[in-house]
Amino acid sequence: MSHLQKLDQYFSEHRDEHLQELFEFLRIPSISSLSEHKPDMLTAANWLAEKLKKLNIDNVSVDPTEGHPVVYGEWLHAPGKPTILFYGHYDVQPVDPLHLWESEPFNPVIRDNKLFARGASDDKGQVYMHLKMIEALFATEGTLPVNVKFIYEGEEEIGSPNLPAYVEANKEKLAADLILISDTGLYAPGKPAVCYGLRGLTGVQIDVRGAKGDLHSGLYGGGVQNAIHALAEILASFRDEHGTIQVDGFYDKVRPLSEEERQAYRDLNFDEEALKEEVGVNELFGEQGYSYLEQTWARPTLEVNGVFGGFSGEGIKTVLPAEAGAKITCRLVPDQDPDEIVQLLKAHIEKHKPKGVSITVSEFDKGAPYLTPFDHPLIQAAGRSYEKIYQVPTAFIRGGGSIPIVASFDEILSLPVVLMGFGLNSENFHAPNEHFHLENFDKGLRVLSDYLHEVSELKI
Amino acid sequence: MSHLQKLDQYFSEHRDEHLQELFEFLRIPSISSLSEHKPDMLTAANWLAEKLKKLNIDNVSVDPTEGHPVVYGEWLHAPGKPTILFYGHYDVQPVDPLHLWESEPFNPVIRDNKLFARGASDDKGQVYMHLKMIEALFATEGTLPVNVKFIYEGEEEIGSPNLPAYVEANKEKLAADLILISDTGLYAPGKPAVCYGLRGLTGVQIDVRGAKGDLHSGLYGGGVQNAIHALAEILASFRDEHGTIQVDGFYDKVRPLSEEERQAYRDLNFDEEALKEEVGVNELFGEQGYSYLEQTWARPTLEVNGVFGGFSGEGIKTVLPAEAGAKITCRLVPDQDPDEIVQLLKAHIEKHKPKGVSITVSEFDKGAPYLTPFDHPLIQAAGRSYEKIYQVPTAFIRGGGSIPIVASFDEILSLPVVLMGFGLNSENFHAPNEHFHLENFDKGLRVLSDYLHEVSELKI
Repeated sequence: MSHLQKLDQYFSEHRDEHLQELFEFLRIPSISSLSEHKPDMLTAANWLAEKLKKLNIDNVSVDPTEGHPVVYGEWLHAPGKPTILFYGHYDVQPVDPLHLWESEPFNPVIRDNKLFARGASDDKGQVYMHLKMIEALFATEGTLPVNVKFIYEGEEEIGSPNLPAYVEANKEKLAADLILISDTGLYAPGKPAVCYGLRGLTGVQIDVRGAKGDLHSGLYGGGVQNAIHALAEILASFRDEHGTIQVDGFYDKVRPLSEEERQAYRDLNFDEEALKEEVGVNELFGEQGYSYLEQTWARPTLEVNGVFGGFSGEGIKTVLPAEAGAKITCRLVPDQDPDEIVQLLKAHIEKHKPKGVSITVSEFDKGAPYLTPFDHPLIQAAGRSYEKIYQVPTAFIRGGGSIPIVASFDEILSLPVVLMGFGLNSENFHAPNEHFHLENFDKGLRVLSDYLHEVSELKI
Repeated sequence: MSHLQKLDQYFSEHRDEHLQELFEFLRIPSISSLSEHKPDMLTAANWLAEKLKKLNIDNVSVDPTEGHPVVYGEWLHAPGKPTILFYGHYDVQPVDPLHLWESEPFNPVIRDNKLFARGASDDKGQVYMHLKMIEALFATEGTLPVNVKFIYEGEEEIGSPNLPAYVEANKEKLAADLILISDTGLYAPGKPAVCYGLRGLTGVQIDVRGAKGDLHSGLYGGGVQNAIHALAEILASFRDEHGTIQVDGFYDKVRPLSEEERQAYRDLNFDEEALKEEVGVNELFGEQGYSYLEQTWARPTLEVNGVFGGFSGEGIKTVLPAEAGAKITCRLVPDQDPDEIVQLLKAHIEKHKPKGVSITVSEFDKGAPYLTPFDHPLIQAAGRSYEKIYQVPTAFIRGGGSIPIVASFDEILSLPVVLMGFGLNSENFHAPNEHFHLENFDKGLRVLSDYLHEVSELKI
């Protein structure tokens, strides 16, 4: 029997037992954002630590932070082989509105081969797969083909406030050859994906001030600048009619898409008509010369997230507004630097400042973009593992959103990040009736086990 | 003795008696917007009617409307002479915040030759001057030099909802050669003004809709239009960097300023530095080639009064907003037509509609601009009357605001409107500690009496 056949047999024989054990994990209401669940957070962390110990993982610890604890463990008995650092999170989102759940969020049930529970997909189900894959390898092969470390946090759903400091303080302990994160999804049902890049984020608030107070538009209108008009001019100056950003230097450091990447995206045959239907628009909109996937995965953006000023109640109020403001965020791609982009935005605003107003620009939190090269051996190896199990070509994708902790791992540990996820966008994470397709639980266990063998063969 | 000397003597001898009587009027808390004052409204109307009757005015009536009553009276025993229709209002603004009043709002007191009470200046004090001027003319001359009619309403402070219908229904009864309104102010202390024009008003709300709901700016940003960006483009397209309106045809019907008017405005030596100080700006702003007074009195405007869309709370929310809106009003000047301007705005919005959104435009109430020509004999005569009493040149001004009832008089009765007011901008109308400088009460009585003689001499 090949190692895959042996693993397959092991997972099949232990499936019920594994699911029952996962139910235990899912029954712990580890909602990180609600203080009344603080004891549950510790329960969940300890539960994970116990499971790691039972796998003969060494140096298992539940490490306190200023918030919820981090669970750590390691197994370093594969000399000369690469080390994989596994990351995931044991905390979950709140469950309200509760009345929309068809079964209780912390009472897992299986319907139609889908496991319904808060955290089933995001991320307890996927974290649990790491553990069972290790268990299966030990059981069928007596050892692991690589060295492994585990870091599971309890604050992902609240923005990982304490993890960067923990990682910074434990750089040596966390040293590895790659980080493997299972907290994303397939490209589509039956179509696996390796996510090799995420966009970063930066943002500013623009506050425009004209007169010292709102003025009567009859008495002063025509002779004093209007803060909303001034703001609208600035906002309109940011992009051209296709959404191409007009801020000097904005695109200078954008790493161009390679022809291989563009071809890989084309091969995905993205359904633009379905997207238009989904979001309810008659036409898509974006930078000329790029496909929708390229626009949302590999090109930076500048979006006004909110605008306010003057009178917004019902009817009319003939005020000449003294103040107006807008919130703006940019999604960034490699090799844009969030701090540098903020400086470019400030310079643009200064350059386009209309007469008769003063402007204040304040900065929001920033997150760097992240990219492991598309053709990196670790990325390509992940694609091969998926392909063996799913029997279709793996999609190599990027995410348009930002997972700040990924960029932190990249920055602090200087490691390639491999995002191997098994969820589906339809699985209601963060919403009522979260679920996880067990087909992908089953396949994912096999993919992950195989990936350890793939990595074991690489010279890195 | 000249007629002015006789009047002067009469007003001096009766000053205390007149002020005591005006106190009676001011003690009636005729707040039109508060239903608990409905009986006070009738008391005030009846008080006025009684005073008119005591002056031997004919056909005095307190005419019910759907709101507060209109007081009417007439004296038409000057055959061959012009007829002046006097307008004013007996209702007043609410008085809160009461604790900011230094003396009770409905307990009139005189301090430093200023009469403090709600309505002292706006408009009971000025209405009362009409009555006492008539009394003085009867007393000193035994008759009036012109025919007169009086219409005093009780709903000016709530937008005159019932007056247009009353005027329309009583067109014949109200027929006259001019309407004289005393509800405005001097140009500055010691510097009288005749206001011969007011701007009109029209407005629209623009609602922009992109996707069917707000989207995640990471997942969709770069590929779907953002409603706020689309709105900002439209708003920015309305004006150039100097505020000149870019809507096709917007200025086509604007009546140009005559050289006489421009010279008259220049002669006022308007203090732009003081204005900047007052409103708190470092620089003024407006259409090139026009002075501040021209910009605010004789040129139309387009102002965004309010803007809204997306997230406006504290911090950041990376939403790609599906909806955004703005409220816009235009101040109009003769001969712009409010309906036509709305059509031009709609055409402009349609022409500048960005990709990827749909737009709804809804209309607000409209008011026509009003102008009695600067060189109209009735306007010039008013200037002469002021000049005789104040001993300085009269300012011929326009108002940048809109008094819809003035445009209604103009439209329904097709009469020239002469705005002869005696208030000062510093007199806190609509605010605590409203007051009226009795110097202008005294002078105004003489100005108005003289104006009846001036009009009597005109062939109109």
